[in-house]
This record gives sequence, structure tokens and C-alpha cells, in this order.
Amino acid sequence: MYSLTVRDHMMIAHSFRGEVFGPAQRLHGATYVVDVSFFRPQLDADNLVVDIGLASEQLKDVLSAMNYRNLDDEPDFAGTNTSTEMLAAVVADRLADRIRTGALGPGASGLERLAVTLRESHVAWATYERNL
Amino acid sequence: MYSLTVRDHMMIAHSFRGEVFGPAQRLHGATYVVDVSFFRPQLDADNLVVDIGLASEQLKDVLSAMNYRNLDDEPDFAGTNTSTEMLAAVVADRLADRIRTGALGPGASGLERLAVTLRESHVAWATYERNL
Amino acid sequence: MYSLTVRDHMMIAHSFRGEVFGPAQRLHGATYVVDVSFFRPQLDADNLVVDIGLASEQLKDVLSAMNYRNLDDEPDFAGTNTSTEMLAAVVADRLADRIRTGALGPGASGLERLAVTLRESHVAWATYERNL
Amino acid sequence: MYSLTVRDHMMIAHSFRGEVFGPAQRLHGATYVVDVSFFRPQLDADNLVVDIGLASEQLKDVLSAMNYRNLDDEPDFAGTNTSTEMLAAVVADRLADRIRTGALGPGASGLERLAVTLRESHVAWATYERNL
Amino acid sequence: MYSLTVRDHMMIAHSFRGEVFGPAQRLHGATYVVDVSFFRPQLDADNLVVDIGLASEQLKDVLSAMNYRNLDDEPDFAGTNTSTEMLAAVVADRLADRIRTGALGPGASGLERLAVTLRESHVAWATYERNL
Amino acid sequence: MYSLTVRDHMMIAHSFRGEVFGPAQRLHGATYVVDVSFFRPQLDADNLVVDIGLASEQLKDVLSAMNYRNLDDEPDFAGTNTSTEMLAAVVADRLADRIRTGALGPGASGLERLAVTLRESHVAWATYERNL
Repeated sequence: MYSLTVRDHMMIAHSFRGEVFGPAQRLHGATYVVDVSFFRPQLDADNLVVDIGLASEQLKDVLSAMNYRNLDDEPDFAGTNTSTEMLAAVVADRLADRIRTGALGPGASGLERLAVTLRESHVAWATYERNL
Repeated sequence: MYSLTVRDHMMIAHSFRGEVFGPAQRLHGATYVVDVSFFRPQLDADNLVVDIGLASEQLKDVLSAMNYRNLDDEPDFAGTNTSTEMLAAVVADRLADRIRTGALGPGASGLERLAVTLRESHVAWATYERNL
Repeated sequence: MYSLTVRDHMMIAHSFRGEVFGPAQRLHGATYVVDVSFFRPQLDADNLVVDIGLASEQLKDVLSAMNYRNLDDEPDFAGTNTSTEMLAAVVADRLADRIRTGALGPGASGLERLAVTLRESHVAWATYERNL
Repeated sequence: MYSLTVRDHMMIAHSFRGEVFGPAQRLHGATYVVDVSFFRPQLDADNLVVDIGLASEQLKDVLSAMNYRNLDDEPDFAGTNTSTEMLAAVVADRLADRIRTGALGPGASGLERLAVTLRESHVAWATYERNL
Repeated sequence: MYSLTVRDHMMIAHSFRGEVFGPAQRLHGATYVVDVSFFRPQLDADNLVVDIGLASEQLKDVLSAMNYRNLDDEPDFAGTNTSTEMLAAVVADRLADRIRTGALGPGASGLERLAVTLRESHVAWATYERNL
Repeated sequence: MYSLTVRDHMMIAHSFRGEVFGPAQRLHGATYVVDVSFFRPQLDADNLVVDIGLASEQLKDVLSAMNYRNLDDEPDFAGTNTSTEMLAAVVADRLADRIRTGALGPGASGLERLAVTLRESHVAWATYERNL
């Protein structure tokens, strides 16, 4: 199995509801360093997993819908705890939609799996992995 | 599949028995930067993999039984080569016990798998992964 | 010259005023991984730059006044752009006050200089360095 | 499952053929920081995944056949796009051959899987994983 | 003293002349992860060291003149060993020219010093630091 | 000013004397990832700060006198707290001696300064910087 990973980041504000979150119930924020891995069993005709230019572009575009925002004010996340693990799934699902509609090029139809890691600090990160 | 990872570290002394270890047969030591990943297929009601506060606390507690010690003098490791890979399994198994007894909270019953990585330097690390 | 550095982090929300900030004028947030370096020309009687336990504790305490908060609501920062470089100076100045009042132990009187780095992502960070 | 990872690097020149590569069609180069992970379900009699000395030595030897070279001039890669993902497979396959012929010691016969990651920058890397 | 650092990278081919370079006399290549630090004693009216958007843009533009190229073919470097340390100075000097001509904005006139680090691998890097 | 940095590591056991060290008074150990920076105002005739091959070799040799040892048993350190900051100075001073006696080549006579950083974990490190 082959994979290719690209990295970008976003900077957001949010708050959590539930006693388990302690002081994180207050409005605060995070930088998420985002790593997206694309998996496929065989390389394409150019010896690539995916067009890295298109992959980086689409990742930046997906993140731009959340970047420099207060997620508490985003209708998509109303009433939702936007935890690191949940946001990893949001990024993965939105990229999966774009792969399906061809935004990463026709070669991307050979992709089988996607893993998205959001690093929230030097001591904590979360990953969501799904099939395509 | 979702995962959440937390990082901590421990500083230990030990020696190895067997010619394969070369100069590491002498008493020496290591800093192990320890990454523990918790896996589950669905998030809990708070949108979490695990209570990160409890997970970090329990990890620190597991490490404290080895931290600032000479492992050659620990009864648990008598006659054992405390290699990086073996210590990764020790940390994983001890955390698995705590998950079973509820120390990471009731939500942790949804966890399926655990992976523990011990980084011994910038050029070598070992991982042990197990089901719960 | 000797230095010792300790690392911690904080997660804050804030917004900026001024066109130069572009989309960062919206309420957003950041994880700051914070490195504090303490400098002195000679080590103390224990061969240390500073008591690393006290230094880490005081750093955590200084950060806790900002951690998990919206800096736009903090009276200390009213009408101020809480840029990464400005916050580095805030952390340094508050630690300098604590050194002066003895919170890092009597040995800390030998410290000459302080440098604080705030890493806001994998591609940007800021440092403020000052004498004591 | 246990794994042990060792890190080394190589510095190569190459060019790509195909419009998808844009400016990378020109002769350029890369530092690949190479991480090789060896997997096995049980440790050997010394509590090891693999003899780390032999593993590091064989990795260095495999890389030396490409290190400080222009891959466009290597007969092995004639007419081939030496992408990061493709080179990860080359390193993995060459190490697998050496494991089979005993170069990593008799204990290495217990290895089941191999994963090779080539990091080409702080924002992009590729992995190839295969059974043994 | 304040500083702000931004990171980017370039991927080049080159060769060296002189026995001291050993196998690096052959045509090979490198990824340089490039960190540029801008220094000034006081922040500007926006509480900034420099407009980070302009700084990143100008850095990318300076690197693009070398990125994806064989430096042996560049007239600017004819007969020159393009060592990591020498290239750090090239990047610094070219950025200094742009600061002087206003490409980083009028606020950049308050900058006093520049440091450029080129990381060629996980075990080697070089820095050039100069006044403005 | 130019600098070149090379990285290596050592793994040692030791204990400390003095209440300030708390649990570190017990025999324990550390991996020190060691970064050595060589400084000079002008490059040599090959456009280098120092012969990186010789520098890496001499660093490895200096570390080998401590690597895989219990520093409490080394006559050089009898009655001494081998703190991270103190060991940084030991490495720097021993390298300075070798520079003086020509072990890093005749070009190394142009070096002016040396900085040695020992990283003991992902959250703590120490540096010693001295003139040559």
C-alpha cells in the first residue's frame, strides 16, 4: 500500500459544552496543523499516489472554510462540540466529497483510503481514517 | 476509525544482556518520549475518543512507576531485557488494565485498540499496538 | 553563556484590528507552543541554570492567566493587538517579575537574560528576548 | 504487533516527465529523510524486533546506491519517474531482499511487514508498506 | 529584541568542486527547509515585527529563482560551491535588498537584522545572520 | 556571521545530589540529542564553515567517551552533578580542544565560536556557548 501526505494548518476559535471539558468550556482557540494521507494499492501512470498540487490546493480550500473563524458561529457546527477528533472527520469527509467529484483529478479515482490528523499542540493530536 | 494521541516522557537507566547489544550491555540510560494513541470506531456523546485529561493523568501515573529509576533494580523486570519495544508493550498493557477498571472513565469502554510509541532518539523508536 | 529552555503551551482566542491582518481580523484562535530560555554566565552551586521544576511551574502559572481564554475580553489587553510577538513579550515580562520576587528560587538571581518563543504553527513563530 | 523504526537520509538529483509535474520537470533535487519500520507479532529471544545495528547498516547501504547521485543517470531508473512514493517502494523492496538473504540476521526471519517513509520536506512525505 | 520567523522550502540540484566534498562532488540535490527571522528592537504600530503576509510572499519569490533548478547551470553561481551556508547568505542578501526597496512594506524599515537558516536534513543545517 | 550545525546523540545513566533534584537523585538516565553549531564571520575557500565530515566524526568521538555509560562511575565526573547544562559545556570544551589541535582540519582555525545544545526531552534542553 502506498500513501502520500501533505501538511497545512488552520487557526480557529471555539468553545465546548460539557463538564468533561473543564476550562475548555470557555471560548478559546487552536492552531491545527493538518496532515492528510491519501492511500492506494498501486501508483498511477505517472508513478504518483495523487497530484500533490491539486491535493494541496483542495486541502487549503477545505480548511479556508474554517480558518480564521469562530466555529461556534458556523451554522454547520451549531450545537456540536468541535473537538479535534470531530474536526479531523469533517476535513476527511469534505476531501472525500471532492475526490468523488473529480477535484483532485481523474487519477484520484484510484484512491482507496484517507487519513486526516489534526495536531493541536506538541503533546496532543487526533486522527480520523476512512475508506473512499 | 478515530484515534487520539497524548505525549509524555520518562528518563530511565538500564543495561542489556546479550552480545547483540554491544556497548549497550553497559549500564546506560534513555529518555523515552511516549506517545499513546487510543482508537475507537465512533466518538462518544461529547464527540471525544477519550477524556484527554484522564488519559494524560493515567499515562503520567503509569510512567511514574518507571521514571527516574534504574530498571535493572525493578523486580518487575528482573532478568528481562528492557528494550524499547518491550517497554512499549509494558506501557500499553498497564494502560489497558486501567481502561478495563474504569480509570479513564466510563466512556473509555468504547475504545477498541491502543498503540504506544517510545522514541529513544531522533533516529530510533518502537511501537506496540494491541486490541482492548 | 549557559541557557536552559522549558516548553509548555496555551490555547487562546483573539482577533486583530487593522487591514494588514486580513482575515485574521475575524475572531479566531491559536495554539502557542511556548519555549522559555533562561541565560546566565556561570552555573549555580548545583550545576544548574535554574531550578527546572520551579521554572516549569511558574511558566504554567503565567500561561494559565491566558490559557483557554478569549484575549479580546481580557482587561489587560483592551485595545491591543495581541500578536504573537507581543504575547512573547508579555510572557517574558511576567516571568521576569516572578524572577525578581524570588518565585524561581534564590539561585535565579544569577540569571541575566530571558528569551520567550511562541510557535503559532509549523511555519511561523516569534521571539522576545530581554535582560533581567 | 510490534514495530521498530530507524531513520537515515539521502540527497539526490532527478527530473520528472509529464505535465502534471510542472516546474519539477526541470532537473532539481531532494533530501529524503528515510524512516524504515520493521513489524513482527512477537519479539525475539533478546526482546527485540530486529538487530538495530544491522538494520541501520543495511539501510545505509541501500541508500548509498542512490545517495549523492543524479537518479536520471542510473540504469535502474531509466525512463522512470522517480517520485517519492516510487522511491519508498524501491527502498522497501531492496531491504526485503536483504532480509530474505539473512543480511539483518537470523532473527529477522520473524519479521512480517515493512514500511518505508520518505520525507521530502516539512510539508510532504510518502510511505510504502508491504508484507515480507 | 523581537523577532518573527517564517518557514518555506526549495528543492535544488547541484555539485561541489574540491576533494573535501567527497561523494558530494557528484551531481546530487537537496531539499532546503528555509527559516527566515526578522529582528527589530520595537514593534510597529500594529504590534508586529513585519507584515507576515508580505514576508512569506517575498521569501517564496526569492526561493522561486532557485527552486526546482540545477544550481550548476545558474549564471549567478558559475564557478561557485553552492554550499548550504553560502546559499543561506544568498537568501538573506536578496531579502535584504527587497526590504531596502520597500517590498516588505514601509514598516519593514524598522528591521535591524536578518537570520536565514537552511536545513538540509534532520542532522545538519546552516545559518547566516546579518545587519540591515 | 555564518554557522553550521550537526546533530548526534548519546544515551547515559547518572544520578544527582541535592534536594533540588527531587526524584532525579535516584539513578536514572537520559538520551541527549546533541546539536553543535560552529560560527565564523567569513566562509573558507571552499565556501564552508567547517568540514562537515570531520566535524561529525569528532563529535561522535567526543560523545563516545560518555555514550552507553553511567556517568556516576566516570572519574572525570567524580563528585559532580552532570546536569544537562554542565554536559553541554563538557562537549563544547572537548570539541574546542580538538579544534585547537587541528582535528577538524586547518580551515577550522577560522572558527570563532561554538554552541552546544543537549536536548533531554521534547520539553527541555540546555545550551552552552563559548568563544574559541
